[in-house]
Amino acid sequence: MRRIALIIEYDGTNYVGWQIQPNGIAVQQAIGDAFFKLIGDRPTLQASGRTDSGVHAYAQVAHFDTDCRIPADKFCYALNTRLPSDIRIKASFEVPEDFHSRFSVREKHYLYTVNNAPHACAFTRDTALHVHHPLDVGRMNEAAGMFMGTHDFNAFKAAGSNAGATERTIFRSEWTRDGSYLSYHVAGSGFLYNMVRIMVGTMLRIGMGFDDPSAVANALSDPRRTNAGDTAPAHGLMLRRVKYDLFDTEDFS
Amino acid sequence: MRRIALIIEYDGTNYVGWQIQPNGIAVQQAIGDAFFKLIGDRPTLQASGRTDSGVHAYAQVAHFDTDCRIPADKFCYALNTRLPSDIRIKASFEVPEDFHSRFSVREKHYLYTVNNAPHACAFTRDTALHVHHPLDVGRMNEAAGMFMGTHDFNAFKAAGSNAGATERTIFRSEWTRDGSYLSYHVAGSGFLYNMVRIMVGTMLRIGMGFDDPSAVANALSDPRRTNAGDTAPAHGLMLRRVKYDLFDTEDFS
Repeated sequence: MRRIALIIEYDGTNYVGWQIQPNGIAVQQAIGDAFFKLIGDRPTLQASGRTDSGVHAYAQVAHFDTDCRIPADKFCYALNTRLPSDIRIKASFEVPEDFHSRFSVREKHYLYTVNNAPHACAFTRDTALHVHHPLDVGRMNEAAGMFMGTHDFNAFKAAGSNAGATERTIFRSEWTRDGSYLSYHVAGSGFLYNMVRIMVGTMLRIGMGFDDPSAVANALSDPRRTNAGDTAPAHGLMLRRVKYDLFDTEDFS
Repeated sequence: MRRIALIIEYDGTNYVGWQIQPNGIAVQQAIGDAFFKLIGDRPTLQASGRTDSGVHAYAQVAHFDTDCRIPADKFCYALNTRLPSDIRIKASFEVPEDFHSRFSVREKHYLYTVNNAPHACAFTRDTALHVHHPLDVGRMNEAAGMFMGTHDFNAFKAAGSNAGATERTIFRSEWTRDGSYLSYHVAGSGFLYNMVRIMVGTMLRIGMGFDDPSAVANALSDPRRTNAGDTAPAHGLMLRRVKYDLFDTEDFS
């Protein structure tokens, strides 16, 4: 039995998310279908984490165990010819048995993209949130800086999601601008359910001038969900990079 | 009666091209539908030129004549709320009666994008041609340079397309590289039917090593269609910019 890791890219537009759901096709399921065509079996795929419906991945990681004799580095080619074109396996390779896509994660990076322009764009309609109200990136970066370090992110967790520890550590939290596009880069040890989208929703209100940057400090020190902003739409979000002791998805870009 | 120009962006994936066809929805038709919802009428739209099925436009130009009292600069907003999200009107403004989107063109720019990588990309699957065979950009640029200036492009015209003069002038013809992406930038006074796609198809054979760069010089001096390469797929092509004496679409980007 070998354990094999996959680096997976997907446009989440046409999927209900990573995890199998009753109301549509999940990315996990589409990959399972490709496996079935290839080896007549659907191995259990363990991902670095779920992504919601409409959320994209530039580099998701999943592993599976198999007795099949296909060389580890050939799985990506064999699966890609059997997958829809909005899901691509960028690499496949053998990993030690004690590697786990989810439990071995050291750091995850997300990217949230906003198109701040009078009109939306035909090409980025599914990968960037269109905001026509002018955004003040300086104010948004002032707020973004407050997320750095270790905090209780309870205010930035979807109401009703799993209980458990809500302390997380953020290593990078920064907005950059390229023309009308604003990109929020966030890296952390781990993220609560909807955490990045609520962080972005909170900073968008600040960027539009409806809240002061101190709203972030307030939501971190008094971590009630009502102290943070709305959950930003899914389609602007992308799982950008996952780092392990063993490898970094960026090595396969 | 006023004449109004529109700057139009579209993802051509879901359309049969600009021009109305019996086998699907044309971009022109989708905009006509939006006009009908807005003013109960479908004005005749004259574009800078047709684009084929699957070809994209970052900046197409079209004009129409109207008696309707909507301010010229409001048409873009009013149409965008009535258009599918893969078509956007970037600007609308009044032009003199002697302006014509097609006949007044001074220069057109096209962009052809190639993703030269082992695996295709989930995000650029509809906007870049995936080529896994390694491409030699140096050889492709040697060939691209031969297109510069005025030549008989008869070899680079779809067989069976309209007769007429086949001499055209090229102002820019250059490949650039950004990571795995190769972009072909071409600017000219005008283009024959399928001309850019046949130019690209010819240069791809050269980049793969199947033909020598001199194949371009040969097809220009002995301009038979069989001396040029295949027509590259539509989805890598984008109408990038149109220049008139009156304005340049780049002013609205």
